[in-house]
Formats: sequence, C-alpha cells, structure tokens
Amino acid sequence: MFKKILIANRGEIAIRIIRALREMGIKSVAVYSTADKHAQHVKEADEAICIGSPQPADSYLNMQNIVSAAVLTGADAIHPGYGFLSESPEFAQMCEECHLVFIGPKSKTISLMGNKANAREMMRKNNIPVIPGSDGIVKNAAAALKIANKVGYPVMLKAVAGGGGKGIRRVTQAADLTEAFNQAQEEARISFGDDRMYLEKIISPAKHVEVQIMADKTGHVVALPERDCSMQRNQQKVIEETPCSQISARERDYLQQITVKAIKAINYENVGTIEFLMDPDHHFYFMEMNTRIQVEHSITEEVAQIDLVKEQVNIAAGKDLSISQEDVHVHGAAIEARINAEDPSKNFCPQAGKIAKMVLPSGLGIRIESGVNSGDTVSPFYDSMIVKIIAHATNRQMAIKRLLDALTEFEIKGLVTNRDFLIALLNDEKFQNGTYLTTYIDQEFLSNYLKRLRNNEKEAQVNGN
Amino acid sequence: MFKKILIANRGEIAIRIIRALREMGIKSVAVYSTADKHAQHVKEADEAICIGSPQPADSYLNMQNIVSAAVLTGADAIHPGYGFLSESPEFAQMCEECHLVFIGPKSKTISLMGNKANAREMMRKNNIPVIPGSDGIVKNAAAALKIANKVGYPVMLKAVAGGGGKGIRRVTQAADLTEAFNQAQEEARISFGDDRMYLEKIISPAKHVEVQIMADKTGHVVALPERDCSMQRNQQKVIEETPCSQISARERDYLQQITVKAIKAINYENVGTIEFLMDPDHHFYFMEMNTRIQVEHSITEEVAQIDLVKEQVNIAAGKDLSISQEDVHVHGAAIEARINAEDPSKNFCPQAGKIAKMVLPSGLGIRIESGVNSGDTVSPFYDSMIVKIIAHATNRQMAIKRLLDALTEFEIKGLVTNRDFLIALLNDEKFQNGTYLTTYIDQEFLSNYLKRLRNNEKEAQVNGN
Repeated sequence: MFKKILIANRGEIAIRIIRALREMGIKSVAVYSTADKHAQHVKEADEAICIGSPQPADSYLNMQNIVSAAVLTGADAIHPGYGFLSESPEFAQMCEECHLVFIGPKSKTISLMGNKANAREMMRKNNIPVIPGSDGIVKNAAAALKIANKVGYPVMLKAVAGGGGKGIRRVTQAADLTEAFNQAQEEARISFGDDRMYLEKIISPAKHVEVQIMADKTGHVVALPERDCSMQRNQQKVIEETPCSQISARERDYLQQITVKAIKAINYENVGTIEFLMDPDHHFYFMEMNTRIQVEHSITEEVAQIDLVKEQVNIAAGKDLSISQEDVHVHGAAIEARINAEDPSKNFCPQAGKIAKMVLPSGLGIRIESGVNSGDTVSPFYDSMIVKIIAHATNRQMAIKRLLDALTEFEIKGLVTNRDFLIALLNDEKFQNGTYLTTYIDQEFLSNYLKRLRNNEKEAQVNGN
Repeated sequence: MFKKILIANRGEIAIRIIRALREMGIKSVAVYSTADKHAQHVKEADEAICIGSPQPADSYLNMQNIVSAAVLTGADAIHPGYGFLSESPEFAQMCEECHLVFIGPKSKTISLMGNKANAREMMRKNNIPVIPGSDGIVKNAAAALKIANKVGYPVMLKAVAGGGGKGIRRVTQAADLTEAFNQAQEEARISFGDDRMYLEKIISPAKHVEVQIMADKTGHVVALPERDCSMQRNQQKVIEETPCSQISARERDYLQQITVKAIKAINYENVGTIEFLMDPDHHFYFMEMNTRIQVEHSITEEVAQIDLVKEQVNIAAGKDLSISQEDVHVHGAAIEARINAEDPSKNFCPQAGKIAKMVLPSGLGIRIESGVNSGDTVSPFYDSMIVKIIAHATNRQMAIKRLLDALTEFEIKGLVTNRDFLIALLNDEKFQNGTYLTTYIDQEFLSNYLKRLRNNEKEAQVNGN
C-alpha cells in the first residue's frame, strides 16, 4: 500500500481525500497556490507545498510543479480529484513516467474517452446506445447533410478536439447545415489545429442519468445506483439525487448491465461515470464518460454504503474491489445541494471575500463536505462551489425535507451564496415530482425565480424595509 | 397526528427533537430560561416561550410553567427529552390531566420503574436475571445480614426512595453491616420520609451493556442492537458504542429476547432502555430501566438505521412501530464521544463562558449533534455536555479511527473542553481492544492520564514554552 499520497487539488475534494487517507493510515501532501496559503486543505494535510501563483495555469494546472512536489516530498502516488488535471492524459502519462502512481485510469484510457468521437465509437461497438449521428468522423458538409437528414433535426456539429464552445454549432434545419459545418470546421482548424468533425442529433428535452462504476485491475466491475443530475444551470449541475425517481428497477438493471459490459470491454480501471441522456420515451443514449471521481460521488456513497475515494486508492494499489455486484443495494435516497459563492440576482456572478461567519447544518442524515470555515477568504481564482450539503433518508420525500431543513439552517455572513435559489428549486413542483429535465432551470424556472426575486425587492422597498 | 409539540428541554436534545418534528411537519415550541434567551434551541423552534429564571427548579423543572406554556401555545403534546422532567411521574400525570400527550410511557409505568426495588421485583418475576440480593424490602439489619451472608460481599444497602447519594451504603464485611444498615435507614427516613431499604450484591468489575427498545400501544416490541456504555467517569458515560464488541451474536439474541419479554409483561409503551451489568463470566444482571430517550440513542440510530425520536412521536400518536424485529440488523459500528465544557486537569470542573470560535468536524460517517454555535455562551446552570460527535463506519476499527480524526478536527476557542481526554481514551489499549469495564477510568486510566498531563506541563515549562 502507498505510504504517502499527494493531492493535486484544493477545496472540499482535497479535504475529502485527506480524510480518507488518514483513515487508511496514509500520509497526505497538499499542494497550494499562493492564494490558498491559509486554505483548509493545507491545514488538514500532513504536509503542504506551494506550487505557484494564484492563476490555475501557474499552480493547480502546472504539471511540472506538481510532479516535482510529489518527488520532493517522497509521495508514491498522486490523487487528482476532479477538475484541474484529473482528466489530462499528459499528466497521467507524466506521473507514469516519473514512477508515481496516478490514481485513476491509465493515460491511454483517459485519452480514448477524452476524444468524444472515439468514445462514442467505442461505446457503439460495445452495444451501448449512442445518440443517432455519424459513425466517427464526418468528412465534409455534404456527408453531414446526408446524416442530418437521416437522423432528423435539430443536430449538433462538433469538433473532435472541441472545448470552450469552439467548433460547435447547433443546426435546426437542412438549409443552414452546409454553412454551419464549414464555419465550425474552420473554427476548429484555427482553435485546435484539428478540423475533424462529427455530428449528433440533439436529444432534448431529456434527463441526465449517470452510472457510477468501480473497476479493479483484475477486471472486476461493479455498477452503483444511478444518479439523476438533470437539475442543471448553464450545463452546470446544481442538485443531484440518487436513485433517479423516474426509472424502474428493470431500467436500472439494464443500465447497469450495459455499463458494466462496456467498462469491461475497454479494460477500464479505477472509478468512473458513464453519463446518459434519457429521452421522454425512456430511451437511453451514451453522452460521455468521466474518467475521475465526480463532485456528486457523495450521494452514491450514502445510498450504496461505500467509500469511493478509498476504493480509488485501493484499486490503484492493486487491491480487489471491496464489494461485488450482488452486494449493491439501494439504501434509501440521497440528495446533494451545491452551495456556491455566487449571486443569482446578478447572473450568478461569482463572489469573493471573507466569510465572516458560517453556520453549517448537522444532525441525523446530514453530511457536510466543505472546503471553507468561518474566517476563511473565498478567492476569485477558483470554482465558486464552497460547500456540499448531502441529505440521506429512508425515502426521497424525506431526503428532500431533510435537505430543505438543512439549507434553511445553513447560514453565511460576508458573502452572497445561492442558498435561497437552492431552497426555491427544492420546493419547486418539478423537483418535488421528479420530472425535471436538463432544460428546466434555464428555460422555465430561472425567469420565474428572478421575477419573484424582483417583486420581493420592490415590495420591500414599498414597505420601506 | 399532533400539530404542535412543546419540547420541555434545552441544548442538543431539544434541537434533535425540533429537527425531527420539522421533518414530520409538526410545529415546535421551545421553552427557555432567561439564561437561554439566545440559545440555539430557541432559534430553531417555530415558537419559544420563557418559563423562568436560570435555576433549573425555576424553569426546566417547573412543571406548572411548562404545562402553562403548552396550553398557552396550543401544543397537543410535550416531549420531555432526557434529564429534567423526563422521568417524573408527577409531570407525566400532570400532562395527562391537562389533556396534553406526554411523549413517553404512562405515568404509572414511570413510577413503577422509578422505584428501584419495585423495578427489580418486576424484572425478577419476568425472568430477567437481577443482581443477587433481597426479594423486595429488607425489614431490618438482622434480615439484611442474613441475605448479605448468603449472596456474598461486597453488598450495597439502598433506600427505595434513594437519590443524590443519600440512604446508600457500601458494605465489604459482615462486621460492618448492622451499623451501616441502621445509619442508612435513618438517613433515608430524614431525607425522604421513607425508610424502606433493599440490598444488592455489588457486581464489579463489570461491563455496562444496555438494550434500547421501542414499544407501541398495540403491544409490538422491538429490541435494537445493544450499546456498550462502560466507559464512565464518576458514573457518567463518556464514550458509548454499538454493538458491544465483547458479546456474541447468541448473547445478543438472548439479551434481546429477555428484554422484549419483560417489556411486554409491563405493558410498556414508547422507547426505553434496560441497563444490564455483565460480569467477567458474561452473566447479565438487570440494573435499571430508563423510561425516556437517552443521550446515546444516536449511535443506535446509525447502526439500526432508524429515527428513534420520530418513533417516539409516532408511538405517542397511536401509530405502529415502523419496523418489526426481523428488520433489525447491525449495520457496521457506531461510537459517540461527548464533548463537555469541563477541565480534566481541574477535577473536570465545569467551564462556562463564550465560545469565541468552534470548528466542527464533518465528512463521510460523521454526525454532529450540537447545542451550541460559535459566539454562544455556555452557561454555568446546566449540564456541561455541549456537542456529541458520532462516527459510523463499516466496522469498529474504522469507526474508532473516524472518531479520532473527527475529534482532532474539532476545535474550540474561549472554553476548555474534554476533547484531549476523549482522544487519549480512544487511543487507549483497553478501549481499542474493547475490554474496558465501568471502573476503568476512575481506577486506572485517569491517574495515568493526569500524570502524563502534569509531565507534559513540566516539560513545557523546562523548555520555556
């Protein structure tokens, strides 16, 4: 087993990992930027080492500095957490070359799943339903038009190397396709030096349903109860729950079976998640695979009664999974709300500043994962998520109530958060009945919420408050 | 179901009850003394009403004021929590007479179990092994001597109406018995106006093992996994765990069976606990019954996956238990540490004052039940327990590690607590191997701990720190 692990991350996930390592008797090394000198993850680790200035590119994305820190402190392995370098095949490879165990899949697996057209092809070949579209690369606009006419509109044209909204076009009718294709391809050539394109039908409205898996080096694969992450704003998950209230036990089995088969086929190891879209007729389509631990892993831990971070470390050390598929049961329901330092009334503008006081909820069925404490300063350089509140109960209705009560108890002074927005979402009928789709916040909920917010403000002014 | 419940208590248990009521959609009424005007339980409740001045006798023990508060606020029921009036048959009866549901057993049951000689007789008649001693009342010193000679020394002479250390004598040899009996009887007559005495052999050293039960109005009784509460200082529980690591599954079944039988025989309703002593040969002896929720109920909730406070409310409202005996399983292990505002180096002197800052641990498997927040003032009038930290894990070893890590994360400024004492206890070999007995802290651990503490202080002085 490893003696010392460096955590190439910050915030709540770094602390989550440090705690797991402590329980395993493994020493932890935190890395930090100069902006994070007094951060909680630095305090909680056994050792800490500064890796650069506040900009992520200079510190948490600086591969050389991180690998040097690991070598310098004598770490055996690196846990990348989520975000930052967690899905960088180059970083995984650099670790491999420096004889540091990267706690995640092999670099070539990350690479394979990171190329979205490849991942799509690989899944299709292994009988995972993919979104109707091109078989791999589309050569030109004429070929794209032919496929689009066949699968039906709207469609999405995507650069294989895409990212940051570049080389991507939504097309709603045949007349617009050729021009859009040529523009996107040109943009991809300029942005990525790679003009390969592929095409997918747009499945919307839909539910985002994802299956968490664990796979060890000897080929054992276990699929865990699915998560419903359809509550999204601007493609960002806001509230996640498990199990999904809208699928049957039979659909759960089906999803788990196809997932396990595909994971085995690609010789995947460590934990990972296959994300699916579910259309209104309950057809499932492969969307993408995340080859790392996710923010929302905690709800699965509660419902499946497993420690996913420990599993990651054990898998990387060559151990077998702690459970097999027959041991997986759905124990009640769990829901997570992400508390972000952001102002919903100002287009969710991220907030930075000092947390004068913070009161965290507690009690039966409440789990807190926090990256900050009272007195800490939230810096403007990183993700605005500061606290996760996870409620676990015997059933979904009770978990909702528990999470609502916890959010009401949550108190922060000195910084605006999305707490009230989360409370409004959980109280919303669409959340309560479980039928919300990925478009719900952006296309329906948000405008009503902001209207109510403005009306309340006006009323307060009229009343002289 | 009740619409509004008054909580005749304060601190963590009041908040625990308020949270359960919220989840059940029942309004809560807090009561408070003038010292608790700004206490957390007052903030968390839907309504709050002042019931008197700081001294418990004037407020939390003032039956008339509490019942008036319930009537005034239109509460249907009163939850007494633990301590204060929770085991007062007079209070339960007053509630009954005022058409307020007392959330607990009937006043006559409280009365029956409150009289220790009666409780002992009742248990003996129902085949629960009791500590060898008198069958009910002992008339005089001669009769006591006869029994003591039979059961063997040491023995304890106890007043039926005993309490506060009055009317009680430990006797180690026959020569001392007559004088001790006469003294104790006289003391009982003066203190309680009741000179009835009984006698029990002293079972020591022993383990304190207790069985939590739930019983509804239709006679269903469920026994839950036992708690080991042997880690005591001066008769006060310090750390509790479940299940007990020193008993077999067969002994667990036996304890549950005899407990359920006795509980059915006395027509008990609501939750309660039968406390046993276990001698080194694993013989169990009835000690006493607690006819209320206990501080340590939380560990049972984690391991049995049940909400005992909700069960209490449901039982009182005439509902059936939510589970039956077949549904009871032991899910891993849970341990609770009681953080007290007290100074171990000054004979555990209770500490009062303002909490300048408090950092509570969190994360997977950690549950916090706290009566206070940063900025609150701990008053000298009440119990010194301010926070409970509960660790739950898949096995005992992991639960110990988790609790140790959580205690290390726990931080409080402005007030001395027993945190370091708890950490030393959990690290102690006797705790680690589970063989500790009720005498362990007082007779072995404490003197060594204080010696180490003094040596550390001396060393610090020598080093000029």
